[in-house]
Amino acid sequence: MRNIRLDLEYDGRNYFGWQCQPDRSTVEQTLKNAVEILVQHPVTIYSSGRTDSGVHAEQHVAHFFSETGLPHERILIALNSLLPDDIVPYRCVDMPQDWKARYDAVEREYRYTYYNDSLPSVFFRHWAYWIKKPLDFEAMKTAARYLEGRHDFSAFRSTHCDAENPVRTIYELSLKKKDKLIFMKVRGQAFLRSQVRTFAGTLLDIGLGRFDPHSIPDMLASKDRNVTGPSLPAHGLSLVAVRYEGDEERFAGQEHRSRWAHFFE
Amino acid sequence: MRNIRLDLEYDGRNYFGWQCQPDRSTVEQTLKNAVEILVQHPVTIYSSGRTDSGVHAEQHVAHFFSETGLPHERILIALNSLLPDDIVPYRCVDMPQDWKARYDAVEREYRYTYYNDSLPSVFFRHWAYWIKKPLDFEAMKTAARYLEGRHDFSAFRSTHCDAENPVRTIYELSLKKKDKLIFMKVRGQAFLRSQVRTFAGTLLDIGLGRFDPHSIPDMLASKDRNVTGPSLPAHGLSLVAVRYEGDEERFAGQEHRSRWAHFFE
Repeated sequence: MRNIRLDLEYDGRNYFGWQCQPDRSTVEQTLKNAVEILVQHPVTIYSSGRTDSGVHAEQHVAHFFSETGLPHERILIALNSLLPDDIVPYRCVDMPQDWKARYDAVEREYRYTYYNDSLPSVFFRHWAYWIKKPLDFEAMKTAARYLEGRHDFSAFRSTHCDAENPVRTIYELSLKKKDKLIFMKVRGQAFLRSQVRTFAGTLLDIGLGRFDPHSIPDMLASKDRNVTGPSLPAHGLSLVAVRYEGDEERFAGQEHRSRWAHFFE
Repeated sequence: MRNIRLDLEYDGRNYFGWQCQPDRSTVEQTLKNAVEILVQHPVTIYSSGRTDSGVHAEQHVAHFFSETGLPHERILIALNSLLPDDIVPYRCVDMPQDWKARYDAVEREYRYTYYNDSLPSVFFRHWAYWIKKPLDFEAMKTAARYLEGRHDFSAFRSTHCDAENPVRTIYELSLKKKDKLIFMKVRGQAFLRSQVRTFAGTLLDIGLGRFDPHSIPDMLASKDRNVTGPSLPAHGLSLVAVRYEGDEERFAGQEHRSRWAHFFE
């Protein structure tokens, strides 16, 4: 049985997130339908994780098991012709039998994009969250550093988060400004529910002067969701990369990340 | 009477071009409706020129006459709240009585974007023309240089073009590659109908090896539309800038071009 991995990008705007739901259009269901037409048998789609309704992905990783003899290039071309133009599998590779996209992921990277100007933007309206009031970028950068490292992130997760352990390690939380866009880049092994969007909302409040940039340690210590900023809207969020051991060698000579990240770095 | 200028950006996808047409949704008509609600009297919208159905703009320039006493900032905020999110006026200024967006324009700049990869792209699907086969970028660059300067462009205009004089001067026709995107930048005082998209189609055919890059002088000399490449689809084309005498001083300290051009330069 082949364990066939697909790396894919999607525009989350028209989907109720990744995971299959009855009577709802989701990325997983749409992909599953296309794969089943291609391989001519039912499949289960496994993935590196869920994304919420409206969230985009530049590199999401999925896999399925099949006896199909189709070569990778044919799978990609066929799936792209079966799928709508807002879901694009762009890489296909066979993985070891026991490889699991979810459990073997060593790192996930997200980007939250703010568009900061008194007037809106046509071009980023579906990819960035528009903030009218001027943001204090330096204060946001100062605050971001406190969120890096290993912490109890109870104050930065949805009250609906059901993870038993609220401790996570943030490898990087950095901000970059390019004209009127601000990119928040965050890397970690795994995240709590709404954690990235709550980081984005808390940094936003700091940029607006509502919180002191040095108040983050107190927020973390409080473990209280009420003292942090809002969870920002989905359309500003993209899953940028999911990293696995061996990908550098596996994709030697290829780009092995999002095909768009360098536009924003 | 004030002569009020608006610089605007729009996503052309949902419009039948700029110019008002009966029973069709156009950018001009949509803008006119919003301006009339704002100033409370009928207006004529003048502009730097038309764009075709589906073509985008990062800086289009329009103006109208009114006695309104509203300050520029208020006009911008009000128009943006009246307009749909795919049309954004981002600059407003009073111009001299006799200033005309169309006749006083000294230069227009367009960008045609190709996306060159074996697989499609989610993120540029509405902004770039997807070419599956690999393009010979150097050949395209070589060919582009022959189109610069003053020429009779009869072979590079729509057979429906009704301009009496087919001679135009191209100040710049350059190509730049960024990952899988190729940007064709073209600057001129004015263009013939479909000229930019026929440049794009002819350079594409050269990139695909259908024409020799050194065949451009013969194409120009032929004055025959049948010897050049196709006019490429609208969604790859953006009006990037319209330049006027005095804009550098008028907008001193501000960006006086498209708000997005540096992403592509």
